[in-house]
Amino acid sequence: MIRAYAATEKSGKLEPFEYDPGLLGEEEVEIQVEYCGICHSDLHMLDNDWGMTQYPFVPGHEVVGTVSALGSRVTTLKVGQRVGAGWFSHSCMTCEWCMSGNQNLCPKAEGIIVGRHGGFADKVRVNYEWAIAIPDDMNPVSAGPLFCGGITVFNPILVCGVKPTEKVGVIGIGGLGHMAIRFLKAWGCEVTAFSHSPEKEAEAKAMGATHFVNSVDPEALASVANSLDFILSTVTADLNWDAYINALRPKGRLHVVGVAPNPLSASLFPLLLGQKSISASPLGSPVTTSDMLNFSVRHGLEPIIEVYPLEQVNEAFEKLRNGKPRYRLVLKV
Amino acid sequence: MIRAYAATEKSGKLEPFEYDPGLLGEEEVEIQVEYCGICHSDLHMLDNDWGMTQYPFVPGHEVVGTVSALGSRVTTLKVGQRVGAGWFSHSCMTCEWCMSGNQNLCPKAEGIIVGRHGGFADKVRVNYEWAIAIPDDMNPVSAGPLFCGGITVFNPILVCGVKPTEKVGVIGIGGLGHMAIRFLKAWGCEVTAFSHSPEKEAEAKAMGATHFVNSVDPEALASVANSLDFILSTVTADLNWDAYINALRPKGRLHVVGVAPNPLSASLFPLLLGQKSISASPLGSPVTTSDMLNFSVRHGLEPIIEVYPLEQVNEAFEKLRNGKPRYRLVLKV
Repeated sequence: MIRAYAATEKSGKLEPFEYDPGLLGEEEVEIQVEYCGICHSDLHMLDNDWGMTQYPFVPGHEVVGTVSALGSRVTTLKVGQRVGAGWFSHSCMTCEWCMSGNQNLCPKAEGIIVGRHGGFADKVRVNYEWAIAIPDDMNPVSAGPLFCGGITVFNPILVCGVKPTEKVGVIGIGGLGHMAIRFLKAWGCEVTAFSHSPEKEAEAKAMGATHFVNSVDPEALASVANSLDFILSTVTADLNWDAYINALRPKGRLHVVGVAPNPLSASLFPLLLGQKSISASPLGSPVTTSDMLNFSVRHGLEPIIEVYPLEQVNEAFEKLRNGKPRYRLVLKV
Repeated sequence: MIRAYAATEKSGKLEPFEYDPGLLGEEEVEIQVEYCGICHSDLHMLDNDWGMTQYPFVPGHEVVGTVSALGSRVTTLKVGQRVGAGWFSHSCMTCEWCMSGNQNLCPKAEGIIVGRHGGFADKVRVNYEWAIAIPDDMNPVSAGPLFCGGITVFNPILVCGVKPTEKVGVIGIGGLGHMAIRFLKAWGCEVTAFSHSPEKEAEAKAMGATHFVNSVDPEALASVANSLDFILSTVTADLNWDAYINALRPKGRLHVVGVAPNPLSASLFPLLLGQKSISASPLGSPVTTSDMLNFSVRHGLEPIIEVYPLEQVNEAFEKLRNGKPRYRLVLKV
């Protein structure tokens, strides 16, 4: 039996919950969970915001742990090895997206907390392709958030071909944004942080931002016109999209990883005259995730976290819902 | 004196007009105009739609002719050589955009009909960088439209990295769209044409389209969901952007070269889940223009044109304004 925490109804409190995972699949990896991050997506799923939550619902998709059992056909990992798992638990490994290394775009990709139970538990299972080896030198306590929040902001750096010579912007200094600033600083870029919270300026600069722009001040936004090659939006709010497109230099890219409530609206003339683009992306592939882990270790990058014991999962959710975690929450199992 | 046709007021008729171009600049090329295409941008400028027209206004930015005189510092061309000129007449050749081969993105780039006189004339002048040599094997009668309409749809193929293995779509079968279909077919792609004119299906297929979609039929649009890698919009109408984003496969790119009246609106979730992008671009660089000319000759591609004598320029404008040119108008000087 796996001992987990589950909600039995929409937005309900999480309570101890046991379930029998059945026989371990031939290609599955069972992970003894040590730590599991809490992500806004867990909250969206708890609240059934996306209409696909099944109750009892066990959240948790930023898993760090050790391999406790391996399916008979898994050859890439060893029992006892430290691994992580993120949003996905299985891709088909046969479609063109899987075959070309884009397992995160597999149309049959299974979400670890979609119709199955996630990582707020002593154990969780994923298929081998999504059990990502964690480098020995990585701090396991803070590694969890890399597997969803981290990869969400690291993948765009590759997708958009960001170069270390470029000047880049990050919108939002939160769970995702603070990791984006650290990644892009380590990537070699000059980073401008955009935030509607002027009090975060010192923190943003400590993370690696060279410039700070108060995003609710139209004059401040206008002052960075035509100055950035790449802007990553990590927020889930409707933005003044044209103001950010205006902040891009020719050939600049605005990339979005947070879903705003309303459709994006962009004037076409500035986009066209500057040969600019708008794009978006979900998570990243297993290989990109591995690359991110190695890059993070090499540069000494860690998410900034607050740790709660698993038993205080409801307090942690409350903090996520109403407080301002700085910057990412992790449950210790 | 240069003998041209000019309008002396907004939307006015064009009348014979002479002007003294002064001394030929050291880096300038004087072109004896043989043919000049008429573009919708000429009409927009004639009507002062963009608020930057100066009257008397001589339109014409799809010039084909021969070099009649060369400035003292021009070493790249010979008198008598056939050249073409498009939207731009001068770039600074010193900024980072010019220095990196993106002269079309030069912030000081001069439009050939913006504050100066264009190609509806016996002669016109441009700086050397925008006097593009026309290959010997190219038909000069139909070459003009390549220098604005052609490069506008050719450049995105390079900007977006379209591969010959890809399935692509072209929205609009008009002056730009018909050239886009021909380029993309010759590029090696499978082309789907989108048009609100079902009667154009046979023509679109003759141009090289494999599939035809009636873009005003929601079911037809839905039937191509998740099937295209690249879609080029050549129209200036507001579109159902989400329907085209939906037609893209993962990693698909929607690229816009026509400016719709209203801002583009796009739902973020489909963009994000499919790692898709929206982009736009203006014209192309001199080198890309040369590449387009050589590619066109090698593949026997020509714009489909109707020819008017320069003296009938007002009839030609009338046709552009109210008729349906098939597909591009050219004035014979």
